[in-house]
Amino acid sequence: MNSSHKHKNAISITKGAGLSSSAGKKALHQLKKKRQYSVKEYLEGILNGNRIILSQAITLIESALPGHRNMAQEIIEKCLPYSGKSLRIGITGVPGAGKSSFIEALGTMLASEGRRIAVLAIDPTSERSKGSILGDKTRMENLAAYQHAFIRPSPSAGTLGGVARKTRETIFLCEAAGFDTIFIETVGVGQSETAVHSMVDFFLLLMLAGAGDELQGIKRGIIEMADMVAITKADGTNTRKAEQAMAAYNSALHLFPAAESGWMPRVLTCSAYQKTGIKMIWELITEYKAFTVKNGYFSKKRKKQSLYWMYETIDQNLKENFYHTTDIKSLAARYEKEVLDDKISSFMAARLLLEKYYSGKTV
Amino acid sequence: MNSSHKHKNAISITKGAGLSSSAGKKALHQLKKKRQYSVKEYLEGILNGNRIILSQAITLIESALPGHRNMAQEIIEKCLPYSGKSLRIGITGVPGAGKSSFIEALGTMLASEGRRIAVLAIDPTSERSKGSILGDKTRMENLAAYQHAFIRPSPSAGTLGGVARKTRETIFLCEAAGFDTIFIETVGVGQSETAVHSMVDFFLLLMLAGAGDELQGIKRGIIEMADMVAITKADGTNTRKAEQAMAAYNSALHLFPAAESGWMPRVLTCSAYQKTGIKMIWELITEYKAFTVKNGYFSKKRKKQSLYWMYETIDQNLKENFYHTTDIKSLAARYEKEVLDDKISSFMAARLLLEKYYSGKTV
Repeated sequence: MNSSHKHKNAISITKGAGLSSSAGKKALHQLKKKRQYSVKEYLEGILNGNRIILSQAITLIESALPGHRNMAQEIIEKCLPYSGKSLRIGITGVPGAGKSSFIEALGTMLASEGRRIAVLAIDPTSERSKGSILGDKTRMENLAAYQHAFIRPSPSAGTLGGVARKTRETIFLCEAAGFDTIFIETVGVGQSETAVHSMVDFFLLLMLAGAGDELQGIKRGIIEMADMVAITKADGTNTRKAEQAMAAYNSALHLFPAAESGWMPRVLTCSAYQKTGIKMIWELITEYKAFTVKNGYFSKKRKKQSLYWMYETIDQNLKENFYHTTDIKSLAARYEKEVLDDKISSFMAARLLLEKYYSGKTV
Repeated sequence: MNSSHKHKNAISITKGAGLSSSAGKKALHQLKKKRQYSVKEYLEGILNGNRIILSQAITLIESALPGHRNMAQEIIEKCLPYSGKSLRIGITGVPGAGKSSFIEALGTMLASEGRRIAVLAIDPTSERSKGSILGDKTRMENLAAYQHAFIRPSPSAGTLGGVARKTRETIFLCEAAGFDTIFIETVGVGQSETAVHSMVDFFLLLMLAGAGDELQGIKRGIIEMADMVAITKADGTNTRKAEQAMAAYNSALHLFPAAESGWMPRVLTCSAYQKTGIKMIWELITEYKAFTVKNGYFSKKRKKQSLYWMYETIDQNLKENFYHTTDIKSLAARYEKEVLDDKISSFMAARLLLEKYYSGKTV
């Protein structure tokens, strides 16, 4: 049912747009084809772990139509008391680092042990061209075959803020549907890893070994955000290089300040192909959970994240409202030029724009 | 004249406050004692390098009175064409890392060579308690003795956003007054280093050597922001430890992605006491400048910073306007609690607050 959400059909809509975008029309069209459920029916379906109904509820979240958004919001609020019980794991790494293979290997292992796995993605349209993220469920064929696994491609349209919000809302729904382990995948080359970091319990960075290759394309600052670094594709002739990289990063990470969690980030090697290292990584993730639950950081971080999203949503809305006000955008472009030419200061430009904005308002 | 701006008298005012704060009253009182200059006289004085008039203009920038702010803005706009020609160097490090001694040693060396040195600070009131930053000019006695050196303590009141804006505006005035090397000092334990990073050309992190001590209190993420790390107090029995730390950080930094500047961050040791390493650090800073001027990054970064401050100022104002609207603050506190108790989602809380805000407005 999500064929229109594949990245090949990605529709780029501008910030804050969405009242009548083609993405919205598609979602509407999709929903019209289905039987219309009530909020109560959605809730029951989700709580019963019905993946079809869960999928349709997520489509409501992703819809740009206000009616759908309102209904989605109601469903989310009703799911809230049943959410929060999963372990949320963020996975990042540049294209080619083997994210899909890794998630499939780890996810399949966990699914075979009876865990219920959901895989979500968070990359906004603007970052999609850099690598196909979950664009195709067939990349996780083995995992997708499990009845208690759920793989959801990234929303195909929208800016980071919008996509991130939708992903966070989707987490709640998946948790209410009983998924106990949720992977949120992102490509580690843009801004999205900060958004992922602010909605997961554990942040895992995947890196490709090789002489210096591991750095290719990775954004500065990501390494310090990671609770664990896994050097992927540590098999065959790559094994030695991977182990060298592991040793180097292990000693380097000790030179950095301890994380607030008190957890010392670990560096490991793994091979999704040979299925080595996967079990060890999972053991360390569960060790991290036990450690942070015990020292109180686990719930402290969740609370901080909740407040972060409350205030972040307000900030985003205020900005969108500002830049969608008549003339502000064109005026901003003009002042940008004057600022760059040193004709006016950044602060004067801001002041003039704000005066223009408030002059048309009673705020 | 800045006795009321010492941190000992720091007055904590809330975000966006300031129409009739005691800081404002003090500034008013100070200015009343002086002869009142016109904008034209201020400009002439600044362009002539008159440190007294420069100081008074900065006091206008720091004033909370709208009349002063307007006059300050006029002066800044008029100084703008004469600004931009200095090298702006950010210096951070935890209390005890020896920031003042280092700046005094480097500043005195440069002043003796005829360079005109200005030293500013950026720490907001809330971070001041963690260390006395430039609270006292006497900490840089030798440097202060030079006629072409200018040391300005941090504004004593305000939030990070406000203090950062004032510091950036002060940079323009100092440049118009002919200062060619501007140090902006900050304590590296809070949020302020990001603000500093967004207004300097070069970012230097000072670290204290010692078995693991170098990490004490440093915020994660700062190391990756640095263009150079200097291990301070590398003298006497400390020398060996400092050199070991230097070697360790040098190899660690190679494991991190290259900065956008293309510059490979360096790690050095120095002793402000023995005056060793200081010259080498300065040579590398000038090498950095030549390197980034040549590859275009120097001016690219300045342009990015100008736009950053334009949009950042708008964002801050929109937020302040929101949170100062009647009932929003108390309502936000109530919803915060409900979000933390999982009674409503972060997004619903944001939505309810935004509805309340817009319901009272025509925006």
